[in-house]
Amino acid sequence: MRHLLTLEDIDRATILRLLDRAEHFRTRGAPRDLLAGRTVLTLFFEPSTRTRTSFVLAAKRLGADNVNFDLSRSSAVKGESLLDTLHTLEAMGLDALVVRHNENGMPAYLAEHAKTDVALINAGDGTHAHPTQGLLDALTIRQRRPDFENLHVTICGDIRHSRVARSDAQALHALGVRDLRLCAPRAMLPESPDEFPGCATADDFDDAIEGADVVIMLRIQKERMAAAQFPEAADYHARFGLDRRRLALAAPDCQVLHPGPINRGIEIAPEVADGAQSRILDQVANGVVTRMAVLAELLAVPA
Amino acid sequence: MRHLLTLEDIDRATILRLLDRAEHFRTRGAPRDLLAGRTVLTLFFEPSTRTRTSFVLAAKRLGADNVNFDLSRSSAVKGESLLDTLHTLEAMGLDALVVRHNENGMPAYLAEHAKTDVALINAGDGTHAHPTQGLLDALTIRQRRPDFENLHVTICGDIRHSRVARSDAQALHALGVRDLRLCAPRAMLPESPDEFPGCATADDFDDAIEGADVVIMLRIQKERMAAAQFPEAADYHARFGLDRRRLALAAPDCQVLHPGPINRGIEIAPEVADGAQSRILDQVANGVVTRMAVLAELLAVPA
Amino acid sequence: MRHLLTLEDIDRATILRLLDRAEHFRTRGAPRDLLAGRTVLTLFFEPSTRTRTSFVLAAKRLGADNVNFDLSRSSAVKGESLLDTLHTLEAMGLDALVVRHNENGMPAYLAEHAKTDVALINAGDGTHAHPTQGLLDALTIRQRRPDFENLHVTICGDIRHSRVARSDAQALHALGVRDLRLCAPRAMLPESPDEFPGCATADDFDDAIEGADVVIMLRIQKERMAAAQFPEAADYHARFGLDRRRLALAAPDCQVLHPGPINRGIEIAPEVADGAQSRILDQVANGVVTRMAVLAELLAVPA
Repeated sequence: MRHLLTLEDIDRATILRLLDRAEHFRTRGAPRDLLAGRTVLTLFFEPSTRTRTSFVLAAKRLGADNVNFDLSRSSAVKGESLLDTLHTLEAMGLDALVVRHNENGMPAYLAEHAKTDVALINAGDGTHAHPTQGLLDALTIRQRRPDFENLHVTICGDIRHSRVARSDAQALHALGVRDLRLCAPRAMLPESPDEFPGCATADDFDDAIEGADVVIMLRIQKERMAAAQFPEAADYHARFGLDRRRLALAAPDCQVLHPGPINRGIEIAPEVADGAQSRILDQVANGVVTRMAVLAELLAVPA
Repeated sequence: MRHLLTLEDIDRATILRLLDRAEHFRTRGAPRDLLAGRTVLTLFFEPSTRTRTSFVLAAKRLGADNVNFDLSRSSAVKGESLLDTLHTLEAMGLDALVVRHNENGMPAYLAEHAKTDVALINAGDGTHAHPTQGLLDALTIRQRRPDFENLHVTICGDIRHSRVARSDAQALHALGVRDLRLCAPRAMLPESPDEFPGCATADDFDDAIEGADVVIMLRIQKERMAAAQFPEAADYHARFGLDRRRLALAAPDCQVLHPGPINRGIEIAPEVADGAQSRILDQVANGVVTRMAVLAELLAVPA
Repeated sequence: MRHLLTLEDIDRATILRLLDRAEHFRTRGAPRDLLAGRTVLTLFFEPSTRTRTSFVLAAKRLGADNVNFDLSRSSAVKGESLLDTLHTLEAMGLDALVVRHNENGMPAYLAEHAKTDVALINAGDGTHAHPTQGLLDALTIRQRRPDFENLHVTICGDIRHSRVARSDAQALHALGVRDLRLCAPRAMLPESPDEFPGCATADDFDDAIEGADVVIMLRIQKERMAAAQFPEAADYHARFGLDRRRLALAAPDCQVLHPGPINRGIEIAPEVADGAQSRILDQVANGVVTRMAVLAELLAVPA
């Protein structure tokens, strides 16, 4: 592995190696000098302090030097092209570059044009991919249910525009999940079934959640809710929100995931977000160790 | 001690332990790995680079990992609730969370709702408390006058709205200061004497400073000055500014403190701010070691 | 050396010592604890993430504690004077203060008023000086041509307003460069020849580049281009841009430098910026090790 741009076509063995390493870091800690002398730079074109902070902590806990490249003050202001910025940063001696961008494929574009062996890590690009989220979600599920071949997983929300849904589906397929169902208002279902091969789709959440071992709720954006003819959040909640009643339709020990930040009372009821089946905060904790594992893997440190 | 939210009801022994440790760090240095592997996050809802930088340096000088949570880019933008932000940050593995907020009691609210054993440190909340300022002021005074039982201390400025005045008064009372006088325009005196038990109040600065061993000047905000019927800064300075003439009314070796940043020529004359009796820069230096002592104490590192 | 404010009057031996150290860091690496326990603060009044990041990496790679003083959140907001900010930062225990400011002489002003032995490093002030750029450019040139006494160097662009041109010229003169030519539209040539002693000036780039061993292109600002009667970037490019045809007039192995960020197609053609003779990315890499050498020198660490 040289970069982490997507989980498309990733194989089961690679995912398991990353998850095992993340789990090892979580339970036994990590050597604080594993990445001493290496430089990890975060370059976020979309605001996301949560994800950025998770990567920063991952880098620091392995002893890497970390720099945030603050775009509001950057030479981007002066009109430098993105590739010139890339090559300038590379020339300063980067080992890993963590990129978030609102355009699909921008991290891959940077990886393709890199002049050094910098590792590009996609921290979310447009509606395309969010691979560390896919990995951390798989880790979270596995902590309670390592038997992916038996699992029914339902993902509910704005599937069409969700990079989380794409990366989750790819990770779960690679891990051999039994049944993966996508649930959304019609306007938010994938435009083509090819985008999510092997997944069933539904626009009735009661049906889609029935018997699920895992339900992954997606954050819904207000603008998109309105465009999908849910002018009122309450209407969306009534049809696609996860509350206690609906959760009772799932398997008794169904795990509830959400990439955060959550919209309480819209896609998820507080009683569920804060309930015993919620894994939301475990996801956050797993996010740091997953990113540590990705950094250690890409920077070629032997396990 | 689990959190540092206020100095109300703090006991003398605890303050002395913190001051002793701060003094030890100042004079003998600190082990650079005392907090290695611990994470200190700063979360400032009010701009204050001075105080934030002081905490950041304190964390770094003890070897802690430090992250600034930049609210302008945070998921707060996306409408996440403050408690969800707290729990998310906690899940990333925080040891200490340094919070400044313009609402009274917000750090205590976060401390109350924390799910982990994260230590909450109040870096200033509304008009309520600024406990590290109270401690560092006590440390500064003690460096020249450890005999608190003999000291006359005068605090002058916008007492009513000052978290510094509250925390200073609490620290100095706990240390057994002999006489504590509060001086302000009437509109800036405490609304009720219960807020500052045991303190005398005055609106004549010449009277209030007479014989003082320590005078603590407070920063005055222009909006409040106007509301208190001092439309001109010069009028405020004439009645409540500390100049050379007034300082001569105090004890000969009277120490002059100010939490900074100072308004030259408004609450304090340059000749006094820069004069031999000024302890203002000593306060800044003491701020870093005091915050180091607080971090070491709260993160339960044996002395 | 106590500060690095300008390269005016710097002697050859000092420059060579710094370049040797930078080259040593580049080729053999640097001890990661050389500046352990020292504090380097960056204070930028002009946006420049590139230069700031270069200094931050330099500090981190030598193990110094690094803090960015973010002015948008600073007490400057509250009207504190610059000298009060300086003294406050000094009181927190700074070893080096890296300053960029749009006014000529501001870093020298701070150096003059410092109360501690903090080292002031000028990271660019107005049109006056950018000494680390001068040093890194000298290092870059020397890597291929250490025989400065034989070199013809041409600097082309907005010489009059360029702190880079001034610092480059001073470094190259100290190193005994044979011939230094300044080329610009008349409105951008130095107001007085005394500003660039010993330099020839020209407003015909074809003439000025002839036989050059090194050509240093300067970034041109659009506002200034218009003021100099080049309303169209293409006109400027035609007369003062470096393209393949013009580069062919220089010596065959002529090195092309540019401080970045580049305006592709304005002062430099992409074919030249990305061509085999371009040293632009080497300059960026040399920037980090040069700043490491400056920090090590000023913080008085024996070589």
